[in-house]
Amino acid sequence: MARYTIGVDFGTESGRAVLVDVADGRPVATAVHPYANGVIDARLPLADREVRLPPDWALQDPDDYLEVFRRAIPAVLRQGGVDPADVIGVGIDFTACTMLPVRADGTPLCDLPEFRASPHAWVKLWKHHAAQPEADRINAVARATSQPWLDRYGGRISSEWFFAKSLQILDEAPELYAAADRLIEAADWVVWRLTGVESRNACTAGYKAMWSKRDGFPDASYFGALDPRLAGVIDQKMSRDILGMGQRAGGISAEAAAWTGLLPGTAVAVANVDAHVATPAATVIDEGRMVMIMGTSTCHVVLSRGEHAVPGMCGYVEDGVIPGFFGYEAGQSCVGDHFSWFVEHAVPGAYESEARARGMDLHVFLQEKAARLRPGESGLLALDWWNGNRSVLVDAELGGLLIGATLATTPEEIYRTLVEATAFGTRVIIETFEAHGVPIREIVACGGLAEKSPLIMQIYADVTGRPFKLSASDQTPALGSAMFGAVAAGAGAGGYGTIEDAARAMARLKDHGYEPIPENVAVYDELYREYVRLHDYFGRGENDVMKTLRRLRGEAAGNRSSATSVAAGEAPEPSAVEA
Amino acid sequence: MARYTIGVDFGTESGRAVLVDVADGRPVATAVHPYANGVIDARLPLADREVRLPPDWALQDPDDYLEVFRRAIPAVLRQGGVDPADVIGVGIDFTACTMLPVRADGTPLCDLPEFRASPHAWVKLWKHHAAQPEADRINAVARATSQPWLDRYGGRISSEWFFAKSLQILDEAPELYAAADRLIEAADWVVWRLTGVESRNACTAGYKAMWSKRDGFPDASYFGALDPRLAGVIDQKMSRDILGMGQRAGGISAEAAAWTGLLPGTAVAVANVDAHVATPAATVIDEGRMVMIMGTSTCHVVLSRGEHAVPGMCGYVEDGVIPGFFGYEAGQSCVGDHFSWFVEHAVPGAYESEARARGMDLHVFLQEKAARLRPGESGLLALDWWNGNRSVLVDAELGGLLIGATLATTPEEIYRTLVEATAFGTRVIIETFEAHGVPIREIVACGGLAEKSPLIMQIYADVTGRPFKLSASDQTPALGSAMFGAVAAGAGAGGYGTIEDAARAMARLKDHGYEPIPENVAVYDELYREYVRLHDYFGRGENDVMKTLRRLRGEAAGNRSSATSVAAGEAPEPSAVEA
Repeated sequence: MARYTIGVDFGTESGRAVLVDVADGRPVATAVHPYANGVIDARLPLADREVRLPPDWALQDPDDYLEVFRRAIPAVLRQGGVDPADVIGVGIDFTACTMLPVRADGTPLCDLPEFRASPHAWVKLWKHHAAQPEADRINAVARATSQPWLDRYGGRISSEWFFAKSLQILDEAPELYAAADRLIEAADWVVWRLTGVESRNACTAGYKAMWSKRDGFPDASYFGALDPRLAGVIDQKMSRDILGMGQRAGGISAEAAAWTGLLPGTAVAVANVDAHVATPAATVIDEGRMVMIMGTSTCHVVLSRGEHAVPGMCGYVEDGVIPGFFGYEAGQSCVGDHFSWFVEHAVPGAYESEARARGMDLHVFLQEKAARLRPGESGLLALDWWNGNRSVLVDAELGGLLIGATLATTPEEIYRTLVEATAFGTRVIIETFEAHGVPIREIVACGGLAEKSPLIMQIYADVTGRPFKLSASDQTPALGSAMFGAVAAGAGAGGYGTIEDAARAMARLKDHGYEPIPENVAVYDELYREYVRLHDYFGRGENDVMKTLRRLRGEAAGNRSSATSVAAGEAPEPSAVEA
Repeated sequence: MARYTIGVDFGTESGRAVLVDVADGRPVATAVHPYANGVIDARLPLADREVRLPPDWALQDPDDYLEVFRRAIPAVLRQGGVDPADVIGVGIDFTACTMLPVRADGTPLCDLPEFRASPHAWVKLWKHHAAQPEADRINAVARATSQPWLDRYGGRISSEWFFAKSLQILDEAPELYAAADRLIEAADWVVWRLTGVESRNACTAGYKAMWSKRDGFPDASYFGALDPRLAGVIDQKMSRDILGMGQRAGGISAEAAAWTGLLPGTAVAVANVDAHVATPAATVIDEGRMVMIMGTSTCHVVLSRGEHAVPGMCGYVEDGVIPGFFGYEAGQSCVGDHFSWFVEHAVPGAYESEARARGMDLHVFLQEKAARLRPGESGLLALDWWNGNRSVLVDAELGGLLIGATLATTPEEIYRTLVEATAFGTRVIIETFEAHGVPIREIVACGGLAEKSPLIMQIYADVTGRPFKLSASDQTPALGSAMFGAVAAGAGAGGYGTIEDAARAMARLKDHGYEPIPENVAVYDELYREYVRLHDYFGRGENDVMKTLRRLRGEAAGNRSSATSVAAGEAPEPSAVEA
């Protein structure tokens, strides 16, 4: 008798449910539900008033997540013609750190009328980049007090992470911080909504909240040094009970059963993170092979039996991906987003018309043109920092750079250059890992970009000088979540006892991969040296022009706000800064 | 009785004739004739075969210039209803250095069937940038032999100039060099066509061919050191008889009278250069006020009674603009071209549609949006080197740079940034002049950009911290040519004895100008410091990445050509390299 699990992957713009066969990982049905409010980065989605957001903010609406359960799970059951009794488990994965303040019963603060117009009451999406001052404080205090955990995170905590975002709430909206009974990853929050039971997972705790299996969270004295009101944050608003990957968080609650059509009590795995959950689904359950989940951003995961402090990485967590390994994570915050920015803001109408006439997506059209270029032929080089740099510089305040443009420069040349820049960024990460004891001989890519663009994959193989394989699944994170659902259900219920067992049965690679082409590698080696020089010059403090530009931008925007208010003779506009 | 003169201004894409009243400079009629073959930078305009041009080439068809005489002069006579007997003189100005090889009778080599398919037989336009190796040799030999004239040109000779272009012909097409009886500026060539008499003007000789009133041309030993075959170039293919500005080159020939409808013998002034001829037409006939002729590129001219070696400028020539002054010239090779590149290659279809719906030119549309931004608000900074840097770095191999981009960066922000970058480039020029004894307290702008864009002018005033006035004429170079035509005719014929007299009668400013706005100046001062730092880092040899990129681009293009030939099993494609 066939058994099934469901993996639900919460992305940046939508959530996706995949129903898979436990025996072989075969996808039976898939449903995608786009978030109604998407990424909220300009103004809150309120009908009755205008609340604008400052630069660098990125929020989400937690109700959009629940809609994914309500829509996509029934859809896959229906499409698959599967009896809910044959679904043995559910797993979810999420972007991270994506977090929100909630009441003790799990109600998001933004769902309360009194806080609905307060930006800090909403979900802070992973790419919310407005907590850099808080991240700077977190790092400065950690260095000053020689916190032992700092090395696990490459020596720098990102503004994207849990305590930077939490501290920003405290700094800018202390009444909201006080009103929040719980501060929680959205990943854990949706599992709570499914099961009725609050749980916390080791992956987000480890990678985003400075927790480790051996040492737990940082001390209260450290948090108190950041702000006295933060000293008790773990015990007051979080939990020290952290569940390992593949554990059962609980069973589907009666309420969630009504939403989803699943049977009450169906096993729900502890929450996971999109990149990390994809690792075993991409067949990576041992050392030496790096997984890259390539989408709007790229996440890199590599396993090692040993513990190595690698500077500038997102971090490593013992048992954070696969029990028994240290899971190392790195990231590039601007990949698919980068190409989309270009397509939306910088491609001339003539190209759009031609692509439309040929019935082609504009990305595909540009890639066709870009594929005719040879390495080096554009005469261009870029730093892929349109959304800051996550690894290895860990600095959200860096900006993008394009160099070498001429009056003959074409859109496809720039497009290819942006692709190459992200590949150089990947190479910096690989070389930094290897220089610190974590070898990488091959890459397994998954995600939309890897699926859709042979050009991009070949450039990555040529730039890194390493073979790129592709995960066979076109929904690798969702497959991984389904696999962890099977582990949560356990072997006795028709699932698996370990994630390795699940991977051997359910995960595979595509037949076709990408090998480096030696003559391209030679040109990219030379371009890479130039990339590294610019990377270090602008990224490591020798010339801080990017930060100066960012400060001037902020001052100009500030002058505009105050000038507007004065001109209108009114109180300052509502803004996210409420303190 | 009214007297008239005609000024003919030969631009990059078209020629323009203006008929003006000698008494007050009032324009009576204007006619523009676009060059049929425009700028030839991809392939020669041949019906019977394909001759592709390498990167950086820019040619023109000399017959296009003669068509301007045949079309535009009759048109202004007709439009103005003016009796040709009342036209006392003609002056012309041209882009420079724009040069060609011709036979002893003035026939361009490209008009001879045996040379028609040879790129080196055509006119090399000012922005032909493929002679950098020759310019490098010219500079190296000049330094090695301590040539006294080198300081007059800021210490560097540009690849755009006369001997770099001539030497490229010799290097790459020696048989064409041998076949050329004369090497001549297009400016002088069109005067030759008008008068039947070959003449050479002091302006192009001085600014583009290292000639000076005191020392003449460099010695034969210097030319011989560049290449023994070049030793006799002045006496063999040029002339030492250089005529001063405002002199009479000759009278309209019978042949030219038939083309133009002018009377034979009508005075024709010695040829002039667009920027230089505009100076008195913009009311600048003394020290302290700089003229900027803003079009596809910008030319800067400032006068001084004294002789000052200013590093990195295009050069200074005694009596080269106005007799009695040293005329200092600087240049920016990428201004209007810069904005046009952006509009053609990087503005999304949605903007094009909206501009079209509103019946607006896309530049005007972008400027409207860009005008809503405050200084610094884009968070961007650019180096305006899409077409190299003419002053003060004198390096055509530099490339453009854009820094600070984010995923929120908009087209209008980039557009504004490119405008600001050109204004920073102007400020570098002004500050370099002032640091070396040539003060500039005010700028008079003319040309299409100055006419059409209050935003651009205000940014220039704010960035430079100096008032910008506008020449009243919207065809300042053509007016200047007409003024020199009146001087060539002389006071006795109803013209003027000196160009100063002509300027006082015929030239004026617009009532409206642009004053620097102090709060904008403060922000731009800070951005300018960052600009200068990047300018010096990338432009003065500390990081030569732009040159590395250019070299790799050339190598990739070279690999492509050879690969194509091999693949086709044929002889290599025709190319401009004929040696």
